[in-house]
Amino acid sequence: MVMVKMVEDGAASAEVQQIFDEIKTARKSTWINNFWKVLASSPSTLQRIWSNVKQVMAPGAIDPLTKEMIYVAVSVTNNCEYCIHSHTAAARAKGMTDEMYAELLAVVGLANETNRLANGYQIPVDEQFKPKFD
Amino acid sequence: MVMVKMVEDGAASAEVQQIFDEIKTARKSTWINNFWKVLASSPSTLQRIWSNVKQVMAPGAIDPLTKEMIYVAVSVTNNCEYCIHSHTAAARAKGMTDEMYAELLAVVGLANETNRLANGYQIPVDEQFKPKFD
Amino acid sequence: MVMVKMVEDGAASAEVQQIFDEIKTARKSTWINNFWKVLASSPSTLQRIWSNVKQVMAPGAIDPLTKEMIYVAVSVTNNCEYCIHSHTAAARAKGMTDEMYAELLAVVGLANETNRLANGYQIPVDEQFKPKFD
Amino acid sequence: MVMVKMVEDGAASAEVQQIFDEIKTARKSTWINNFWKVLASSPSTLQRIWSNVKQVMAPGAIDPLTKEMIYVAVSVTNNCEYCIHSHTAAARAKGMTDEMYAELLAVVGLANETNRLANGYQIPVDEQFKPKFD
Amino acid sequence: MVMVKMVEDGAASAEVQQIFDEIKTARKSTWINNFWKVLASSPSTLQRIWSNVKQVMAPGAIDPLTKEMIYVAVSVTNNCEYCIHSHTAAARAKGMTDEMYAELLAVVGLANETNRLANGYQIPVDEQFKPKFD
Amino acid sequence: MVMVKMVEDGAASAEVQQIFDEIKTARKSTWINNFWKVLASSPSTLQRIWSNVKQVMAPGAIDPLTKEMIYVAVSVTNNCEYCIHSHTAAARAKGMTDEMYAELLAVVGLANETNRLANGYQIPVDEQFKPKFD
Repeated sequence: MVMVKMVEDGAASAEVQQIFDEIKTARKSTWINNFWKVLASSPSTLQRIWSNVKQVMAPGAIDPLTKEMIYVAVSVTNNCEYCIHSHTAAARAKGMTDEMYAELLAVVGLANETNRLANGYQIPVDEQFKPKFD
Repeated sequence: MVMVKMVEDGAASAEVQQIFDEIKTARKSTWINNFWKVLASSPSTLQRIWSNVKQVMAPGAIDPLTKEMIYVAVSVTNNCEYCIHSHTAAARAKGMTDEMYAELLAVVGLANETNRLANGYQIPVDEQFKPKFD
Repeated sequence: MVMVKMVEDGAASAEVQQIFDEIKTARKSTWINNFWKVLASSPSTLQRIWSNVKQVMAPGAIDPLTKEMIYVAVSVTNNCEYCIHSHTAAARAKGMTDEMYAELLAVVGLANETNRLANGYQIPVDEQFKPKFD
Repeated sequence: MVMVKMVEDGAASAEVQQIFDEIKTARKSTWINNFWKVLASSPSTLQRIWSNVKQVMAPGAIDPLTKEMIYVAVSVTNNCEYCIHSHTAAARAKGMTDEMYAELLAVVGLANETNRLANGYQIPVDEQFKPKFD
Repeated sequence: MVMVKMVEDGAASAEVQQIFDEIKTARKSTWINNFWKVLASSPSTLQRIWSNVKQVMAPGAIDPLTKEMIYVAVSVTNNCEYCIHSHTAAARAKGMTDEMYAELLAVVGLANETNRLANGYQIPVDEQFKPKFD
Repeated sequence: MVMVKMVEDGAASAEVQQIFDEIKTARKSTWINNFWKVLASSPSTLQRIWSNVKQVMAPGAIDPLTKEMIYVAVSVTNNCEYCIHSHTAAARAKGMTDEMYAELLAVVGLANETNRLANGYQIPVDEQFKPKFD
């Protein structure tokens, strides 16, 4: 049987606890979800992934709600059950309404369909669409 | 050798030309891209897919630019070359800046990474995230 | 916690109930499966997807059982648990035997294998196989 | 620069040439396509894969044309360019008409769409669909 | 309801039992896992897949532990729950430590991320990287 | 037309050039490949991804050649053409022989096949394989 350590908030090494505290502060949350508790079994992975998430998901040219919806779109396409649940919850918390949710999934579904029509017919890329590397 | 008919704008049946004209009007465009020219080899497919695209991509609770970026996110995840090119061009035309593009791809990349960490560790979904079907 | 509305047959709006009734009639079935009950939370999505399914899955140049097996092949490749279950059941109902089921999965498995051998070796497409767009 | 050996028909070792000859005989073909010429760089892989293809693609409870269409469905879903080309050509050679091709791609596209709707909404599997392991 | 036969060790036909015995001997194991018990519902599939596994996973130019870790990498990328569990267990049995496991998943995650950055930006392949078919 | 900036080695900002120099030193290489030149259009992405690659691909509990082969396995499964080329070249540079390459692709192919057999039959995970979260 494979043993996976899940590090609990409040029972972590100083190094891990500091990241847990930072996650809770950044998210104005009182608890740590399983993703981080499992990653904490490898402190260098925990540190690295949290650092990436902080940088990539910060408000920028794209707003945080849109970023969460893009995250959901990828997770649904890949069928990552955990990520669908956690990022749908995050998008809801940031203001995604029922109507937005239905439209998000409709776009994801349609894109997956037309991706395969384009693949299947092996449609040549129009000259007008080709990027020009400069 | 497989022969694929590509129906040219201006040389189409009345049924297909009507849809081509509608596409050009809807997009304020003067030309038809290869995706529609190839689908037109099956007029019922052309009609059906255009009808879906019109409904799903229309302005709604999510704005058209965000919908295009979601489309790009799915197409990149699936590696559909044609769709990456055509929907990146569409997002650019709707106002996606260089900064937004870089952030979009950064989110898509990170989501693909954490999807696999969640899968790989087979992280159990937190009770707090589980949807309640009502 | 995310609340997902599942609309029950017999407790739906007139608009949704009409589609539920049409689904039951078309399938000679006395019940509605969860896929449609969940989609019904967005009536326009329910209407759109049912309209697509009716058109695409109708008997045509390919018979309905073969279409269901193709649906299973895609769902297995994408690992969509719900779709594997529902479309395997549909294919069984249309006459898929144990022998056909074993052969279907064998082809799906082998195609997934040789897809990666072709990708991995980056095998150039033979001139004889290239489609000619006309 | 990576060197990939492509073994030519007529210039192969006795072991490889015997398989090439068997492939040509089985397919009533006068040439060997690149897939086999590249696999031949590893004779044990060539032998193993050809042995699998022979067994799996043979006429059985499912006819050879349907098997080729299932192969195309998987290859389109995975976007394997080589396999889309080679198996579409094979399906055409076995009788796939333009109408069948359009319907095949329509089913593949729709399945990819509804797979994501089922994933996205995390629809619970109906009791009626669950397999019973016996 | 779909009935799936799961053939139990000790209650199998002579043909299937012989393969079960060979699997147990090869793996120095006293039990048969569900994968083989389900495949046994189609003896020709059981025979074919076992024959492939024996050939491909045998010690060769790549050692058995590395092969298992490659198997896990693919299974995580595809999100095959069964395969993640069974091949992680196999890799553990062959000596994969906690540190190796964390590094394996880190590489798999990062590769999935940069795969999408390369796809998304449609980065042209450097001349230096292109294989030369000879 | 989409314009993608590709930043050339020697014509970069001080911030980017420093990373380019570090990449060349780390790899004992005299040139920068397109992946980094394109990422450089977003210096924060360039910095972030290079930092991840350095950390994840460093020698550790798993040796660098094995890490490269795992990278290739993921890239082949996802069909990322650029990544297949660049990481196969890297694995070759680190000592991957023709025999290892053939075995690597054989394992990747087989894993992709059995992943779908396990998915298709929806094989229940054996109790013996389930991880215990502690």
